[in-house]
Parts: sequence; structure tokens; C-alpha cells
Amino acid sequence: MLSASSPAEPVRPVRPAGPAGPIPRKSVTGMPVVGMVGGGQLARMTAQAAIGLGARFRVLAGAPSESAAQVTHDVVVGSHLSLPDVAAFAAGCDVLTFDHEHVPGSVLTSLESSGVLVRPGSAALWYTQDKLAMRERLTSLGAPCPRYAPVSSVADVEAFAASGGGTWPVVLKAVSGGYDGKGVWVCSSPAEAAEVLGHGIALLAEEFVPFRRELAALVARSPSGQGAAYPVVQTVQVDGICREVIAPAPGLDPEVAASASALALRISAALGVLGLLAVELFETPSGGLLVNELAMRPHNSGHWTIEGARTSQFEQHLRAVLDLPLGSVAPSGAFAVMANLLGGTDPDVYDRYIHVMAADPAVKVHFYGKEVRLGRKIGHVTIVAEPGDEVEAVRDRARRAASYLRWGTEDGD
Amino acid sequence: MLSASSPAEPVRPVRPAGPAGPIPRKSVTGMPVVGMVGGGQLARMTAQAAIGLGARFRVLAGAPSESAAQVTHDVVVGSHLSLPDVAAFAAGCDVLTFDHEHVPGSVLTSLESSGVLVRPGSAALWYTQDKLAMRERLTSLGAPCPRYAPVSSVADVEAFAASGGGTWPVVLKAVSGGYDGKGVWVCSSPAEAAEVLGHGIALLAEEFVPFRRELAALVARSPSGQGAAYPVVQTVQVDGICREVIAPAPGLDPEVAASASALALRISAALGVLGLLAVELFETPSGGLLVNELAMRPHNSGHWTIEGARTSQFEQHLRAVLDLPLGSVAPSGAFAVMANLLGGTDPDVYDRYIHVMAADPAVKVHFYGKEVRLGRKIGHVTIVAEPGDEVEAVRDRARRAASYLRWGTEDGD
Repeated sequence: MLSASSPAEPVRPVRPAGPAGPIPRKSVTGMPVVGMVGGGQLARMTAQAAIGLGARFRVLAGAPSESAAQVTHDVVVGSHLSLPDVAAFAAGCDVLTFDHEHVPGSVLTSLESSGVLVRPGSAALWYTQDKLAMRERLTSLGAPCPRYAPVSSVADVEAFAASGGGTWPVVLKAVSGGYDGKGVWVCSSPAEAAEVLGHGIALLAEEFVPFRRELAALVARSPSGQGAAYPVVQTVQVDGICREVIAPAPGLDPEVAASASALALRISAALGVLGLLAVELFETPSGGLLVNELAMRPHNSGHWTIEGARTSQFEQHLRAVLDLPLGSVAPSGAFAVMANLLGGTDPDVYDRYIHVMAADPAVKVHFYGKEVRLGRKIGHVTIVAEPGDEVEAVRDRARRAASYLRWGTEDGD
Repeated sequence: MLSASSPAEPVRPVRPAGPAGPIPRKSVTGMPVVGMVGGGQLARMTAQAAIGLGARFRVLAGAPSESAAQVTHDVVVGSHLSLPDVAAFAAGCDVLTFDHEHVPGSVLTSLESSGVLVRPGSAALWYTQDKLAMRERLTSLGAPCPRYAPVSSVADVEAFAASGGGTWPVVLKAVSGGYDGKGVWVCSSPAEAAEVLGHGIALLAEEFVPFRRELAALVARSPSGQGAAYPVVQTVQVDGICREVIAPAPGLDPEVAASASALALRISAALGVLGLLAVELFETPSGGLLVNELAMRPHNSGHWTIEGARTSQFEQHLRAVLDLPLGSVAPSGAFAVMANLLGGTDPDVYDRYIHVMAADPAVKVHFYGKEVRLGRKIGHVTIVAEPGDEVEAVRDRARRAASYLRWGTEDGD
């Protein structure tokens, strides 16, 4: 019998994930049933991939209006924080996976104890829920990380800055969760750090990395131990929001690319990740790499794979959590550019959608079924290069499409 | 008020399809609602495309277990032969389209009379429901067709054979529908023709074309008049069932390919088709073309476009019936091969599925959620060529995958 425990108290999981090999199949069609906890756009795009793969797909959504709930046949409404809700949902699934990393560790371990195949498992997800544990583990693996230290006072932050030569800004990160929807603060002074410390949450200080650019390495790993690495991409963030992804990262030294992929595969194996692992990286001015963040699920930096790779990240995640052999990660064009689509001020995007389609038949627009709100991610566009296309020109076309969809002008942001 | 009329009495429609331009939108997300009548695999794959496009998608299925009903969020169970059922379904849609051509003309015209946007419209669909009307119309357009004549007696069939130099076999086709699930009979003798005539259905005689191979030209046309043509493909049929598609058709004279596309676009415009039109063609020994059949919907000869073209036929059909600008039909590889997957004798394909994925990571298997029955189309596989791949080798890989999935051996059929 499953027992509920408080989601407010994270419990460090210790059980390994379930065994490798063919999984039981509860579906009437003889195909396994994958349940995804969370009804956001990642689940929506995974639902799309499940149709092609033939797998049965269920979603546990917070509300029937959520992105994935709009398009999935089998939707259960419930809370990802509630053990009874998640356990009841899991009872109809052969394997459980996630659209986000917010299911409490205590819920995950309870499910695992009762025999549910949870992929990725609680022991791996722990590192996405506790950034200090993540830094310590990565450091023990020899993975290059920014300098970091747990801090609980302004004095701690000042000492951290001093140990780096007195350099500000200092980055403060919530060890777990965040405050007011934020989990990362770039503090230019002790006064700014004091304000963040005032929230009373556990914090980690990290050096502010003056990176050349940001990269992401996306890999998949299955219970049988098979791994697959997508080409390393460049991501462009504005105000902490991913705006653009270029795949592969233009002009990246092949040795650096190979070492980024190898690093991601090594982390994936060491942490026992099942399914996708996205490793967000800083490329330093000297061409080195530092791990910024980890995500154990389909990731915004991999949306380009829907059109740009032979196997999309969503299909790959399903294959991996089902312990099916992984699919080809070969690109379907010389390169691809993805631009996120943020909400503007006009709630009705349809006329602008028609314009964008007419202006550029190669633009693939993906809407997430979300109500338009200023600055909210409501979709993305992808362009796969045709022979003769140049990177900067395709980036420009993707930016113009995203800008037009947002503002009704190609020159917005 | 809609009034029901008997589906047993086909009525030749006369109203043109609805007007071009932006369509009303009933969806709460501001995106239009497309309703597809029929719950087969074509609707299933269209549902998948609708998710990416952001359009709302509904299916009218005959039963909740049908292929598309398993994966579509908004499923209505009802009969495509019933005007009340189809009208009630259409009331929740901005535009109505079809997974098959079996909705009676009387139902279609009633819907159109009450203002429903039916795409393709009844006037176009008529030509898929009356093969004699189709042949007459194509002939009047100057489209090359096999020699044909309506027949109602063995004497008629013998006269038809005699007028072609006494050549047998003669092909008999049901003008509308068919008998016992069949609509085409290749008759080697007057006795065989007599047996078909004994069914008492309206028949058409056609010359038996000793074709070099079969081709298919797939085009899309929107209410605004935009057209798009996919590369012309080769199809391989065995016992009247499509087994394999090679895109583009290997070694096809570029002028013949261009004339096939031009012919399909011309037929599409002349018949007022909205959405997809597949023109099945015979390539004659001298390199000429003859129109075999027409289909006004996504078509088996276009399944390769899911992975092999920048815009899948399913997305393209949705764009066309919504009067959205059409998407790029550029290929995503030098060529692609699709093989249909037929049911074998073992109902559980899952272990074989794992084998096929492991053997060839480039094979994309699509299962339709159908119970395995001997000879039934239960899915398909597609391989998109990577640089250096050769057509015959890729055909062999696709055949081996389909054979293994069916029989558990790579050397089956």
C-alpha cells in the first residue's frame, strides 16, 4: 500500500531505477502504456511522438485546459504533488515519466517502492531538485563546473566573492525550487544579495561566468545502457528565457563538441538517468566548457529535432523510457534553427500565423494551445536548412517569423 | 434545418465548395476546428499533424476502438452514413474533411446547403464515388485514361474486348462502391466477367494496361487556389494492395515527372478539389501515362512524407482545407522508401518491433493501433536515405523490416 508523505520535505532517494528489458504491457493493443506526469508543451509534443511510435500515451494534467490535455486521448486530471493522484495515474501505466522535475522525491520513492517503473528514477531526478547535490556530484565526477558554495548569509556571499578575487556580480541560485517563480538571481552587490537572502530559502552562490556563448548537449540513455547523443547546439537566452537554438552550434570546434557529448553521456550514466538528459553548458572565452544546468526530460534546446533530426527528442525519450532501441540522431538537413515564440499583446495570433506561413513555406510553426500572455512561451518555429542556405540568413528568417507572430512586425524581438 | 435522405440513392452534387479566405473559428484557443469524418489510420496521422499545426482536431469514428479514436482527444462516435450524425459532428467544426470517400453525396450536399464548409466538396468527391463520371470528366479534360466503357452484359464486355482487338483480360470496376469488399476484378474470360456481372451492380469495363510500373502524383490545392505538388513516386502493388512506395520514382524521366505533376494539378483545379488529390498512374511500356484512380484525401502513396518531406501530406491536407498557405514540399533526404506493414499470424508484434528497431535505427515504424489480422494493413515503415545510401539497398532494408514485423523473419513477404 502506498503511503503519502509531505511533499514539503524532500527525501533523498536511494533506490535505483527499475530493471532493464521488455516491460509489462497494460494496453489492449499490445503496446506499452507510457504515462507522463505534467500537461505542458513537452507532454503535448511527446503525445504527438507517441502516435507515430504506436505507444499508448496518458497524461496527468493539472487541468483539462493544459497544453497536452487538449490533444491527448487519455487525460487524468490531478496534482503531481499528491501521492494518491500520481499513484492512481501510475496504476494504468507500464512506465511513468515526466514533463517537468517538480514531482516531490517522497512521491517518487513511494511509487518506486510499490513497484512502479519510474523513468528517470528518483535517484537521478534528485540532482535536478537539489542544485547543491548536483554541483557536488558533478564535481566528484570531474565534470567542469563554475565555482560554487552554499551560502546562508551576506557574509558568506561576500566571502565567496572575495575568494574569487572580490569579483561581482555573484549568481545566487535556489538549492531547490525558488521564490516567486524565480530560482536564479544575478547580484551586483552585497545589498542585492541581502535582498535574495531575505526570502529565507536555501541558496547556492556561483561565479558569474563571462561566457562566449551557451551550448546544450542532449543525450538519451535507456535501461539497457544504450546511449545516443544529438549534435551539440548553441542556445541564445534573453533575460533567462531561451529565445533561439542553432543546431549544430555554428563553428564549434569538433573536439569541443565531442567532449561536450562525451561529458553528457558520462553524466547520464553516472547519475543513472533513463530517458533524455540535457546538459546546459557555458563555452568560456578560452573555448572551455562549464556545466550550467541539467534537465532530465525533453528540453527546449531539442525542439529543433522534430523536423531537424531523423528521430525527435520526444520519440527518443519514449524509446528510452520504454527500453526500446534508440533511433537515429542523424540530422535531416545541414542545420536547423529554432526560435521560441513569446506572447505579445494581441491575443489572436491567427491572422499573423497565415502571414508567416505565406511569407516562408519552410517555417514550421508549433503552437502549444496556450492563451497568449505577454512574454509567455506559446510556441516555437523551426526552419531546417535547404542546400545553399546560410546560417545567419536562416536565423534571420526564424527571428522574423517569431517577431511577426508576436508583434505583427518582422522587426520586433 | 437539415433533412435526411437515403444514402442508397447517390445524388450528383451541383453546389460548388465554400468560399476562399479565413474561416470562422469555433475553438477556444482561437485556432480553427477541423473535423475529420472517419477514424482510420489516415485520420490518426492527421491528428498527429494537427498537434504540430496547433489546429483543433475532431474525429467522427464508427467506434471508440478505431485507429484515430485511440489517439484523438475529441472523438465523436457515429455513422458517416447518417446525416444527423454527421451534421451534429459538423456543428462543432469550422471545416469538415474526410478520412475516406464513403460519405453519401446526399449527406454532403445537405451539409453544404446548411452552410457547412465541406472540403473537398461534394461536387469534387462525386468523381471518387462514380468511376464512370470520373472517366468521362477526365476524358473531357484530355487526361490520358485507359480505354473504358460502361457494361451491363457479357455481350457488352465481349464487344469491349473485341473493340480492343479481342484482347483479354478485361478489367471490370464497380461504378460505385463494390461487392464483398472488392471493387475491381481482372477477368480472363467471358465466363469470369459473367460471374462479376451476376452481382447485379453497375460496372465499367477498362482495358488491362500492361504497365511498366505504377506511379502516383500527390498534390494539394487550397480554396485560395494555391497548389503544391510532391515529387512523383513509384508504388508497388501486390494483389491490389500497396506494398511499397519509392519517393521519388527511381529513374523517372524528369519530363514525365513534370507532366504527371502538371496533370494532377490540372485535374485538381478542374474538379475543384480542396485538400489533397492523389492521382494513381500507370507508366506504360513506351513511357506514357494513364490515369488509374483518384483519391481526394491523404493517401498511402504519401505516407513517406511524414519523414521524407518538410511538410507531411497530413499537415498539407489540413493547411489546404483550412485555406492556410501551403508548406514546403522539399524532400528531407535524397529519397525515401515506405513499406506497408501487413498483419501476419502472431497477434503480438512487440518483440519483433524491438528487434527491428535494434537492427536498423533509421527505420521508422508507424503502428495504427489495429488488431493484427492476416493480410490487414496495420502500419508502415519508412526509411529516409542518408548520403551514400542506394535505392535498392534501402528498399531491401524496408522490406526486411516489414517482413520481420509480419513474420518474424526478414525473408518473408
